[in-house]
Amino acid sequence: MGGNSFGTLFRVTSFGESHGPGVGCVVDGCPAGLLLSAEDIKRDLVRRRPGHDGAAPQERAGVSSRNEEDEPEILSGVYEGKTLGTPIAVLVRNKDPRPDDYDYLKDLYRPGHADWPWEAKYGFRDHRGGGRSSARETVGRVAAGAIARAFLVSQGIEIRAWTSQAAGVDAPEPGMPESDAFDWNEIENNPLRMPDKAAADSALEKIKNLGAQGDSAGCTVSCIALNLPPGLGEPVFDKLDARIAAAMLSLGAAKAIEFGSGFAASKGRGSETNDCLTPPTDFAGELPPGVPPISFRSNNAGGVLGGLSTGAHLRFTVAFKPVPSIAMRQETIDRRGGKVEIANRGRHDVCVAPRVVPVVEAMCALVLADFVLLKRSDRAF
Amino acid sequence: MGGNSFGTLFRVTSFGESHGPGVGCVVDGCPAGLLLSAEDIKRDLVRRRPGHDGAAPQERAGVSSRNEEDEPEILSGVYEGKTLGTPIAVLVRNKDPRPDDYDYLKDLYRPGHADWPWEAKYGFRDHRGGGRSSARETVGRVAAGAIARAFLVSQGIEIRAWTSQAAGVDAPEPGMPESDAFDWNEIENNPLRMPDKAAADSALEKIKNLGAQGDSAGCTVSCIALNLPPGLGEPVFDKLDARIAAAMLSLGAAKAIEFGSGFAASKGRGSETNDCLTPPTDFAGELPPGVPPISFRSNNAGGVLGGLSTGAHLRFTVAFKPVPSIAMRQETIDRRGGKVEIANRGRHDVCVAPRVVPVVEAMCALVLADFVLLKRSDRAF
Amino acid sequence: MGGNSFGTLFRVTSFGESHGPGVGCVVDGCPAGLLLSAEDIKRDLVRRRPGHDGAAPQERAGVSSRNEEDEPEILSGVYEGKTLGTPIAVLVRNKDPRPDDYDYLKDLYRPGHADWPWEAKYGFRDHRGGGRSSARETVGRVAAGAIARAFLVSQGIEIRAWTSQAAGVDAPEPGMPESDAFDWNEIENNPLRMPDKAAADSALEKIKNLGAQGDSAGCTVSCIALNLPPGLGEPVFDKLDARIAAAMLSLGAAKAIEFGSGFAASKGRGSETNDCLTPPTDFAGELPPGVPPISFRSNNAGGVLGGLSTGAHLRFTVAFKPVPSIAMRQETIDRRGGKVEIANRGRHDVCVAPRVVPVVEAMCALVLADFVLLKRSDRAF
Amino acid sequence: MGGNSFGTLFRVTSFGESHGPGVGCVVDGCPAGLLLSAEDIKRDLVRRRPGHDGAAPQERAGVSSRNEEDEPEILSGVYEGKTLGTPIAVLVRNKDPRPDDYDYLKDLYRPGHADWPWEAKYGFRDHRGGGRSSARETVGRVAAGAIARAFLVSQGIEIRAWTSQAAGVDAPEPGMPESDAFDWNEIENNPLRMPDKAAADSALEKIKNLGAQGDSAGCTVSCIALNLPPGLGEPVFDKLDARIAAAMLSLGAAKAIEFGSGFAASKGRGSETNDCLTPPTDFAGELPPGVPPISFRSNNAGGVLGGLSTGAHLRFTVAFKPVPSIAMRQETIDRRGGKVEIANRGRHDVCVAPRVVPVVEAMCALVLADFVLLKRSDRAF
Repeated sequence: MGGNSFGTLFRVTSFGESHGPGVGCVVDGCPAGLLLSAEDIKRDLVRRRPGHDGAAPQERAGVSSRNEEDEPEILSGVYEGKTLGTPIAVLVRNKDPRPDDYDYLKDLYRPGHADWPWEAKYGFRDHRGGGRSSARETVGRVAAGAIARAFLVSQGIEIRAWTSQAAGVDAPEPGMPESDAFDWNEIENNPLRMPDKAAADSALEKIKNLGAQGDSAGCTVSCIALNLPPGLGEPVFDKLDARIAAAMLSLGAAKAIEFGSGFAASKGRGSETNDCLTPPTDFAGELPPGVPPISFRSNNAGGVLGGLSTGAHLRFTVAFKPVPSIAMRQETIDRRGGKVEIANRGRHDVCVAPRVVPVVEAMCALVLADFVLLKRSDRAF
Repeated sequence: MGGNSFGTLFRVTSFGESHGPGVGCVVDGCPAGLLLSAEDIKRDLVRRRPGHDGAAPQERAGVSSRNEEDEPEILSGVYEGKTLGTPIAVLVRNKDPRPDDYDYLKDLYRPGHADWPWEAKYGFRDHRGGGRSSARETVGRVAAGAIARAFLVSQGIEIRAWTSQAAGVDAPEPGMPESDAFDWNEIENNPLRMPDKAAADSALEKIKNLGAQGDSAGCTVSCIALNLPPGLGEPVFDKLDARIAAAMLSLGAAKAIEFGSGFAASKGRGSETNDCLTPPTDFAGELPPGVPPISFRSNNAGGVLGGLSTGAHLRFTVAFKPVPSIAMRQETIDRRGGKVEIANRGRHDVCVAPRVVPVVEAMCALVLADFVLLKRSDRAF
Repeated sequence: MGGNSFGTLFRVTSFGESHGPGVGCVVDGCPAGLLLSAEDIKRDLVRRRPGHDGAAPQERAGVSSRNEEDEPEILSGVYEGKTLGTPIAVLVRNKDPRPDDYDYLKDLYRPGHADWPWEAKYGFRDHRGGGRSSARETVGRVAAGAIARAFLVSQGIEIRAWTSQAAGVDAPEPGMPESDAFDWNEIENNPLRMPDKAAADSALEKIKNLGAQGDSAGCTVSCIALNLPPGLGEPVFDKLDARIAAAMLSLGAAKAIEFGSGFAASKGRGSETNDCLTPPTDFAGELPPGVPPISFRSNNAGGVLGGLSTGAHLRFTVAFKPVPSIAMRQETIDRRGGKVEIANRGRHDVCVAPRVVPVVEAMCALVLADFVLLKRSDRAF
Repeated sequence: MGGNSFGTLFRVTSFGESHGPGVGCVVDGCPAGLLLSAEDIKRDLVRRRPGHDGAAPQERAGVSSRNEEDEPEILSGVYEGKTLGTPIAVLVRNKDPRPDDYDYLKDLYRPGHADWPWEAKYGFRDHRGGGRSSARETVGRVAAGAIARAFLVSQGIEIRAWTSQAAGVDAPEPGMPESDAFDWNEIENNPLRMPDKAAADSALEKIKNLGAQGDSAGCTVSCIALNLPPGLGEPVFDKLDARIAAAMLSLGAAKAIEFGSGFAASKGRGSETNDCLTPPTDFAGELPPGVPPISFRSNNAGGVLGGLSTGAHLRFTVAFKPVPSIAMRQETIDRRGGKVEIANRGRHDVCVAPRVVPVVEAMCALVLADFVLLKRSDRAF
């Protein structure tokens, strides 16, 4: 089938291998009349590459030194600075390919990577930098997400993600009411995109040490979406949380997701985890006649009930495994079935934490843009 | 859009409200020539209703007393005991509806339920037993899952789920190598479907106490799929884990999912979490020429790499929040926006644990059946 | 894959074999709040069975005598007479099955029917009355179309079809301006649903003679949709005419379709076939700011330009081949590859003309309902 | 929604405006291991531009002089000359844009074009050369079709199209048995792609005269597909003929399609139009056990019964209206709703006939490639 398209009305199709001519996407279904430029897309692509000219002054401890400019070119769908309602194709050329760096991997299957099952599936693969299963594939996601975000902003919706844990160091929770330790402005100020400088410093130290040992670190990324109208989601299968979960688990190193209090809720009691309804404080969203605005006294549900947005903040956390490419020696198998040892060379992040943050936002934006459009067909009148 | 269809080639469309004429499904794309009878479907529907004539002798502590026979009728797609390749429609009549029981809920929005966002979305709802957002909707899923499972069995694939935690009591892990405490045969022998009698007894005691207090309990359900061929999944969006995550988060009370070592992996190191490849022990699955069979020394990945099955067991755990319908008084809002108190009456489970186990298996079966068919188009020759 | 679902936002899934327990459909995506009852559906089902209690007093010359009541039961999606926004499942039981009538066909492949390719595809078929490839399958389409039509009526859109040719006898064209011979009211007054009594009498006479000879007749059905807003359709693949064409060619005996002046236009000149724009006379439809209302001086385009509705009437004609089941002897092949002769028995129409008219309307309604909903996502603001 | 994707397993997404940076496509789901190069794609693109370096020595009477090289660049999905199973993105830069040529159209709605309904839909359009509704959009289709054709050839399937009528001049039918006048080799030898030199000469003369008058001509294109396995198609909605019809009516100037004897059949009798089955002569295709190979004594059905390929040649004809851009003066409306006169300037074909032939083949190839893959899921064993 492919499986490289995502969404129903706001639909992205992604393409590209790590060391082919380029990576990119086609966004079909973006409504017409939206202001959009290549700069809007580049802004998010830059955030995907911290440590270079990005917003976060990366100290390079944890991040690959592959130095690509990632210049997005809009090939179609935009005229005189506005979206036409036609497909928006975006191309980013691969500029810094050193495919020879990967020759030693040609006949090996790296532990923790898709090499072996990919070859079992297709009988054939582009081994250079992981080919299609490289993190470079997320360039297309981020470009598409930037377009989705432009649409969402026009609807008043905002998305924010951050590193909530890295190398075992937890960041504070944003909380409800707001936690003092959590600082929204800090997120883009430190190399790990954590909302607390002390936590970031501590985690960065650990990541450096792991990198020095030739090892790698895992992390979690949390995300919040503000000002969602209630009723986003299409039960019973295309629920808001179901689609967000699919979006996040489609990311390379993602291994888990939880909404609201998640796993903790599974050990709790109903009387604790139910979020009671109260008269509205700052309810956002238009309602059909006869439906009163409400608020919730807590948000254990993470802003989703029955697969629909509730009007409270959408809130979820994604767990990422440690980067599988490590310099330490590992046993594996080669193409002839023989035992071999491998020690990864080349440019690799130690932790996906800072770079995956805008990717999480992008995927969240894609899901929400689709549901905002789908919601327009809810009612006959 | 609806959102009531799931799958690409093996595709289920679900229908029905809790207190309407019936619930059911249409399965389109089930291959022709498969043996199938209403009995095959009923077998799984019975497991969805432990405590009655089901496999698990439920003591009714934790389970609703709604006593419905759930007789599936196959309306189409099967002739002389074999699937025709045409849509298989299954209808289960609702037999024990006491809609008047729900009159007191008509103008209220229950905490922890979809009542309010549902009404915000559609401007209108069937309040009786939650209408379409009732757990009774899973009848259609289980019926479809039974058909998927019949197909998977024909391909040698097996799926097993169990309650891995309930009311805070953990069951042992199946482990690799096998844990002594984990007993596959015990699962269907106790009312909670836990793989360990002592854990089940302890959890059941806690559930009873919570029920007596008018409260409820959460749980986790784990699931394993055996004998998967490598290469199931369609990157980069329809990855095996992405679709499983969507399937599971589309279940009513599900709040989280993790694959393999999941959240724990996010705190670990690459050298620990990478599953090294070794020569094969009991590799299952046909491979294209030139691809050697392999095994993994551990299964932290939960059987998925790069969104593709690896040939190791697929392994994931889903977290369910406590049942939101509780007899304790809670504050909420009514249709006019006024504050009211609510204490749920009627028939409600205290914990979804035993009944949701076959639903998890059903959703897993639907995902796998679809990917097994999709896999047939991987290669040109 | 199945292939038994149609539509994106307003989506029907059809099921059922001719001699199985029943036929029906699930409509997913019908907006909430629409008035709907089983009577609304039955009204169109009755029109599918002229000659009985239907609107057209069929003289049975051309129509099968299979006498089924076709009582639709709404299984879900409607509460207190209004659509819920959830899937609407409709079941019609098969009541008059005489499967033994078909025993002589069990091992034969009938000329002009799907018997042989069906068996080549699935290796297996339900031979009774054509199984899934029977015209009885259109019950599900008509039921779904009735729901679509209820939605379209709420949007001011009307659909009318009629027999424009039968057994070689042409009916007058509605024309622009209106033709005198074409009488909208006559359509449901004669057994063939032709807009002219004299034409209907003449065609009916020919059909009777063909039936007496054991032969059958072809026909064309024309359809018009009024009050469409401009801009329905989703270029470049899901154009309005592309989807209508797919809808119509998915009907059993359909072999051709033309829009507006169709094949005649392919022999004409641009200066004749271009429909010039003029100031509006009776323009229907809301327009974005800055777009002037217009009219067309002719409608050779059949109301579609570039795959989008123009605001003029949508107008197309579908050609149906003669009913393949004939009493005359024909040569064919049996299951062992041997030559045999066949003379169809049982109940068969001589011409699909009167019964297929509401089916054409139903399919047109399904396409339009979908595009009306899709149109809601055209613009960002 | 977009509507710029086509197909289920073999799926193309098209992008690009006539005078934007480029046009192209992404093909997702092409099986792995197929030999493919940019040259394979260019070969068909060249055929789309006769009169230049194309196969047909066009005399330029009927064809636009826009002189673009149409160099396809494969951006992804191919490695070492073979398809990877990943999305294949193809980009063709627009090289000869003279957007100023279109300034006089900026505020007009051209008769016979999508200008007005497009603006009514999106509130905004790229007026340069028709923007997305330009015939230049078919570059993406032809590129994708070349990939589909490479796959089909690997399965032994061949597709051939030709101009069967132009400016009212009919070409001979290929017939069954073969007509003497019909010459397969002649098709690519004359500027109109007709299978008969005399007919081509006569039609070309008429087209030149029409062009000289500032007028334009219509045409029909016929297409045949050889060596199809029986059972291609997914009833009841995604039938082979339904999808082919959708594919063809999605082409810019297409107004009608007929399969086999089409409209003629609708005036005939069953005893004439039924294609009787006989023992096989040259049956192509693998059959399940128990299904005998057969042949048909005629092919009025055009190779489709019940929406499935029969094993006989698939055969259909598409009608195209005259090119709407004509130099003669026509009345129309401008953006302020005022009456104006227009006489098209710029580069326009007089007849779509020669250039649309490879586009018809491409769309046919896309449909067939999809169904060949879908067919792999027909049976359980």
